[in-house]
Amino acid sequence: MIRMIAGIDIGGTNVRVGTVPEDGSTIHGVTAELTQAEGTVDQIKRMLQQSVDKTTDELGSSDFEVVGVGIGAPGPLDRKTGTVLLSPNLGWVNEPIRDSVADASGLPTSLENDANCAIFGEWWRGAARGGRVVVGLTIGTGVGGGVVLNGEIFHGVSDAAGEIGHASIDTNGRRCKCGNYGCLEAYASGPAIANRAVEGIEAGAHSNVLDFVDGDLSAITAKTVSDAALSGDQFCADVIRETAHFLGNAVANLVNIFNPDIVVICGGVTLTGVHLFKPLQHQVVRRAFDPSVAACKIVPGALPGTAGIFGAAGAFLSQRDNKG
Amino acid sequence: MIRMIAGIDIGGTNVRVGTVPEDGSTIHGVTAELTQAEGTVDQIKRMLQQSVDKTTDELGSSDFEVVGVGIGAPGPLDRKTGTVLLSPNLGWVNEPIRDSVADASGLPTSLENDANCAIFGEWWRGAARGGRVVVGLTIGTGVGGGVVLNGEIFHGVSDAAGEIGHASIDTNGRRCKCGNYGCLEAYASGPAIANRAVEGIEAGAHSNVLDFVDGDLSAITAKTVSDAALSGDQFCADVIRETAHFLGNAVANLVNIFNPDIVVICGGVTLTGVHLFKPLQHQVVRRAFDPSVAACKIVPGALPGTAGIFGAAGAFLSQRDNKG
Repeated sequence: MIRMIAGIDIGGTNVRVGTVPEDGSTIHGVTAELTQAEGTVDQIKRMLQQSVDKTTDELGSSDFEVVGVGIGAPGPLDRKTGTVLLSPNLGWVNEPIRDSVADASGLPTSLENDANCAIFGEWWRGAARGGRVVVGLTIGTGVGGGVVLNGEIFHGVSDAAGEIGHASIDTNGRRCKCGNYGCLEAYASGPAIANRAVEGIEAGAHSNVLDFVDGDLSAITAKTVSDAALSGDQFCADVIRETAHFLGNAVANLVNIFNPDIVVICGGVTLTGVHLFKPLQHQVVRRAFDPSVAACKIVPGALPGTAGIFGAAGAFLSQRDNKG
Repeated sequence: MIRMIAGIDIGGTNVRVGTVPEDGSTIHGVTAELTQAEGTVDQIKRMLQQSVDKTTDELGSSDFEVVGVGIGAPGPLDRKTGTVLLSPNLGWVNEPIRDSVADASGLPTSLENDANCAIFGEWWRGAARGGRVVVGLTIGTGVGGGVVLNGEIFHGVSDAAGEIGHASIDTNGRRCKCGNYGCLEAYASGPAIANRAVEGIEAGAHSNVLDFVDGDLSAITAKTVSDAALSGDQFCADVIRETAHFLGNAVANLVNIFNPDIVVICGGVTLTGVHLFKPLQHQVVRRAFDPSVAACKIVPGALPGTAGIFGAAGAFLSQRDNKG
């Protein structure tokens, strides 16, 4: 009998669900859908059942039992009550998502921040394995962050720690949606990367990225910028390099503050590989203290699309085992 | 018999030594001298003996025994070997200060970073008592930092964590001595505060601070700026407010990253009180996430001149007790 945990990764764009055995050795029943603006809770319950059914198919004759559910959700949340306090993207205010899912599944269920889950997943089963002090960034619709110290997610005093995307790198910089100025997210999120490309093209820069979007500026995304850079487009390579500059500045700060052994950077933009990581590393070497730079490796996430599922399942195990 | 620990706080400007009972309830034998450029190690050994003698005088007939020595020293260091790797101000390279002091005193001795000691002292006996997640800044010749999590100094993986003064708040900002750009230290250290005042006066600003230095611009320090602000000088109050702006930006970042319950700010400039803390708090409220702001209080250090001694003694106890 394999004991498994279902992990649910609720994002502003996608909901992803899968099942992971307690030793984290593999993943099954992975399902992903666009996040529904209405009825998200029902969608999650339905996808959970789908994932368990799919796991049954995949495992064939192997006997397994799902013994718990871990949820990763955006927004400030209260782990103790299992409530998401506020998620504008999902339209949630004080949403008791943990208990809704627990009632529907009849299983013990945990709630954890989505970015924390992604970084914890990378620590548990991905690129940050073995790290003692792990700091991570997730680059998507926003820029999320998470800190894993000695194998435990660092929560701060009210579950709000790790908002690295909202640490400012420029005191007088771009206004961020959060109200602050110069947040990393205002420069390095997916939409911010796309915006910087559009701004450049509107100002007259030549770029083949337009071929990737049939000439439609409004269709440019971080992915098309990244694809164009990989295809040899110089302008988009510059946009990625600029992104690396901002990220490198933020990572240098984190290296000086945390003296980590691993900084892990997750999200689609990391697929540009050397375009991103070489100038990023250069900035960190230039800006951070030598002994801390020497102690730290900076790596792309190794679990694209599943880090959040692994992490949500792993966070369930942590919460269960620390409790009992 | 009172068991006591001697704490030695080695700064670029002053060396301070004192003795603290194991329960941290009080402090005795406090001595302070300007740091000698040459022969610092001999100075430290001499001051340690002076402090013990002074403690004997102060305690009169009370029986006590010094059972250990804690050293707080600047620069990157290796706690395991008890070595300061590099301290330009002290002219030290790979200085085995822990064993030098242990040999001279015949007592078990520990080494810890000086800023970590100050913040740990504030946690143990000062303004950050009871804090679970404490982040602190020390404003002096430089801007140091320290993080205390659940009563333990957070060291990172190679004893270099907590360099909050060298987290950049402006990616294209002032060049810092460390090589980075826009470090908090480049704006909010004592010399940086003095420089900003001098720059303003050279550019034509009127200020009574000149009365505090007999008209000698080169004699302006953070203390004279602070004194002038307290005496009602508008220009110097503005310089302090500007300092609060920079500090508030950095503290907002720390609040978003650590979700602390206490941020403690140490150093002479905090004596300007409301001139500094009101605009600092305003920046944090404006910039950081509401739930984290609500969970956090921002306080001045309560142990001016002795936080580092308390913390060095406390760090000795931590290292001893964690060892076994």
